[in-house]
Amino acid sequence: MAHVTPVLLAGGSGTRLWPLSRQSYPKQFARLTGEESLFQASARRMAGRGLGPEGDLHFAAPVVLTNADFRFIVTEQLAQAGVEPGAVLIEPEGRNTAPAILAAALHLAAEDAEAILLVAPSDHVVPDARAFHALVGRGLAAVAEGRLVTFGVRPTRAETAYGYLELDGEACDPEDPRPLRGFVEKPDAARAARMLADGGYLWNAGIFLFSARDVVAAFRRHAPVLCDPVEAALREARPDLGFLRLAPGPWGRADAISIDYAVMEKAANLSALPFEAAWSDLGGWDAVWRESGPDGDGVATSGGATAIDCRDTLLRSESPGVEVVGIGLKDIMAVATPDAVLVAHMGRAQEVRRAVAALKAKGAPQATQFPKDHRPWGWFETLVVGPRFRVKRILVHPGASLSLQSHFHRAEHWIVVSGTARVTIDGAQQVLSENQSVYVPLGAVHRMENPGRVPMVLIEVQTGAYVEEDDIVRYEDAYARA
Amino acid sequence: MAHVTPVLLAGGSGTRLWPLSRQSYPKQFARLTGEESLFQASARRMAGRGLGPEGDLHFAAPVVLTNADFRFIVTEQLAQAGVEPGAVLIEPEGRNTAPAILAAALHLAAEDAEAILLVAPSDHVVPDARAFHALVGRGLAAVAEGRLVTFGVRPTRAETAYGYLELDGEACDPEDPRPLRGFVEKPDAARAARMLADGGYLWNAGIFLFSARDVVAAFRRHAPVLCDPVEAALREARPDLGFLRLAPGPWGRADAISIDYAVMEKAANLSALPFEAAWSDLGGWDAVWRESGPDGDGVATSGGATAIDCRDTLLRSESPGVEVVGIGLKDIMAVATPDAVLVAHMGRAQEVRRAVAALKAKGAPQATQFPKDHRPWGWFETLVVGPRFRVKRILVHPGASLSLQSHFHRAEHWIVVSGTARVTIDGAQQVLSENQSVYVPLGAVHRMENPGRVPMVLIEVQTGAYVEEDDIVRYEDAYARA
Repeated sequence: MAHVTPVLLAGGSGTRLWPLSRQSYPKQFARLTGEESLFQASARRMAGRGLGPEGDLHFAAPVVLTNADFRFIVTEQLAQAGVEPGAVLIEPEGRNTAPAILAAALHLAAEDAEAILLVAPSDHVVPDARAFHALVGRGLAAVAEGRLVTFGVRPTRAETAYGYLELDGEACDPEDPRPLRGFVEKPDAARAARMLADGGYLWNAGIFLFSARDVVAAFRRHAPVLCDPVEAALREARPDLGFLRLAPGPWGRADAISIDYAVMEKAANLSALPFEAAWSDLGGWDAVWRESGPDGDGVATSGGATAIDCRDTLLRSESPGVEVVGIGLKDIMAVATPDAVLVAHMGRAQEVRRAVAALKAKGAPQATQFPKDHRPWGWFETLVVGPRFRVKRILVHPGASLSLQSHFHRAEHWIVVSGTARVTIDGAQQVLSENQSVYVPLGAVHRMENPGRVPMVLIEVQTGAYVEEDDIVRYEDAYARA
Repeated sequence: MAHVTPVLLAGGSGTRLWPLSRQSYPKQFARLTGEESLFQASARRMAGRGLGPEGDLHFAAPVVLTNADFRFIVTEQLAQAGVEPGAVLIEPEGRNTAPAILAAALHLAAEDAEAILLVAPSDHVVPDARAFHALVGRGLAAVAEGRLVTFGVRPTRAETAYGYLELDGEACDPEDPRPLRGFVEKPDAARAARMLADGGYLWNAGIFLFSARDVVAAFRRHAPVLCDPVEAALREARPDLGFLRLAPGPWGRADAISIDYAVMEKAANLSALPFEAAWSDLGGWDAVWRESGPDGDGVATSGGATAIDCRDTLLRSESPGVEVVGIGLKDIMAVATPDAVLVAHMGRAQEVRRAVAALKAKGAPQATQFPKDHRPWGWFETLVVGPRFRVKRILVHPGASLSLQSHFHRAEHWIVVSGTARVTIDGAQQVLSENQSVYVPLGAVHRMENPGRVPMVLIEVQTGAYVEEDDIVRYEDAYARA
């Protein structure tokens, strides 16, 4: 029985899928292609019993790398997906893939130097999990020989948005591992066409399989400068509510570099294994359109979206309350969320970051934030703001509690609409169930908890001269924010 | 001093400006081109002292024709605009312009047969009110000679979306009245170009000036079949809260026909007067784009809308909470409201009704309704609906009251966030001010009033097994809905 530990990279925050992907809640956590997020799909694809060549693949609990802002999204989504993480390492700042993967390898090597790591981005689409498991199974033989394995995807079109792997030598079986001659940056159209025709190139999917021992050895040999700071960041790491926070000081001294450049480009024991099934990095709305299964007219719709006389068009409503209608469109993508709408020519998919930049420049929160704000204890969203009032919907997870706090400028009315709340106001505690309400006077020291087994939802109506988030004094906080 | 009574036609409900114009709140009441609605702008353009050729034009209080659904929107918008209506006639159903105009003329003739009527749609844009007043002043001389005057707009392009007036004879001064040879239906492009070149054609704007006596005489002569039902509908009309409800029985027997066909096409005493200033019927988003003053790239944006590398494109956000971004668009219109987004090719502006039809077919409320629901006492909007709860924002006009009512399936929490509420629950009355709240138990007979001088806003949180509008028993209602 081969045990493989998935290492899920979940710290990135791209803007090419804005307005669905935002800095506060990026692509990997969004429900882009179905009921679960890409991160959840990735975690479930690499969990439990897999099917190797001999049906003997078993995934250990994953190591997740993310940043502090996303840590509770990670745990919430893993819990929903029924996947128990082995460890969640918090990167104090993004330093590209090499330090992150080295940290995961060192963390696992401390327990078992023979541990086998399957490193994968958590924001890609791999529809056929069985084919992926078979691929991992084929890679294990090479790993047993001490090789570093990278999986590349067999190209199906002359794509210019991906990097490529250039294979070396000849394989008897096209599915066999091949030595790697090198990495190719995103090509122009002519070169992409030549590589597609040649057959000796794969799309670089950023997926790796190796033992902890071998990859740490490769780092020591090819990127020794990374080892000290990453080892120190791990040695001085601080456990926090089940997370492992890497030490910011040494972490900041690690070079921000990809594992491709730091190690793989230089390693002699590198093998590339072709993945012959469907894969996408969903690197833009054009990729989402392609993966959504457009109809005979090239039209893909989702949510409450209706296309009339359209061709080669993507129409998405990302809110049950928003209807999107397209008429007479060609090569257009339109994505509507409750607070932002993107309409772009399909050929401009890689320029969506310009929308984010423009909104940042005008100070619009839509550039980076969602109306729904995720917190350690659950989430809240503002339903309406007016002169001297604000109405929020608040969800508190079972067992969770907000900080003990007070406000200088507002009073609050709380009405429980679902579940049970335990409320403390100036030291007096009471339990509210559905349809009960309570008043929190201005200045009162208060706390809200969910003592129950189901999520608690309440409506909060704030009234006062100033109803912004920063009017808060925290006295105690279960999540170390006081 | 010439007294002119405006007759404002405000009963229509087109769908070509969906999603901003909907059956429940159509185009004339929407804020399309500025701070006030087209209806308000029309009412103010034809109010108070106008500037005739000798500066002696005076507008009497207008007669407004609308339908029952819009009657409170009419009175609210007129009050905001500071225009006191002379009469608001409620058409039991839309029967086109001839019966409506005849009803207004008969209503005014009963007081003064010499009354001069200025009949106008209330959903057109006329930026230059002084030029319009001068036009009316020029028409008065012809009216004094017993003529029916129609104003036509001097064409500035070969427009195919308008009907035309074909002029007869020659005028010494191009601004003089001319006899009318006839009406031309919407032409094809070639004919529109010929008419533009000819110079003897005007756009039919549907604006008329005549005395009550003369137009009633014309109806009696050319459309006698309309006279009996319309006279009966007026004779049997029922006054209701300041409205005059035309009697549905006889009204339903009046032919649905336009005044052009019923009278104008046949009348020998018809004169056409050219309007040489800007005018638009805003008959589609392409017209709105044109009237919005597009920039050098042909881009017009409004609200929170941002255009990046776009050309000949209209981007509108109709909600302060929604940002719209366009990238690389050409000939596209995109209009976003909080619950619906239209994206269409500019050349499809006249097909927007297909969006409405598609949404109707799928049962989407966005086809006809806005989230904000206007009632006689103010308005409400649903902020969020969930399992067993609904949150509404409610605004009650000063002095207004909701019906005395009860619900079988829900309790309600009310929190006043602005103004003062008088609340009656099972016979007990209390006054709530800002930041106070009250609980209305399931089954309790209750009423909410605004006894104050400023609008009262409250947040209502409904909880219960069924939280739909039809769970209501009305006991008393100031607006005859019990």
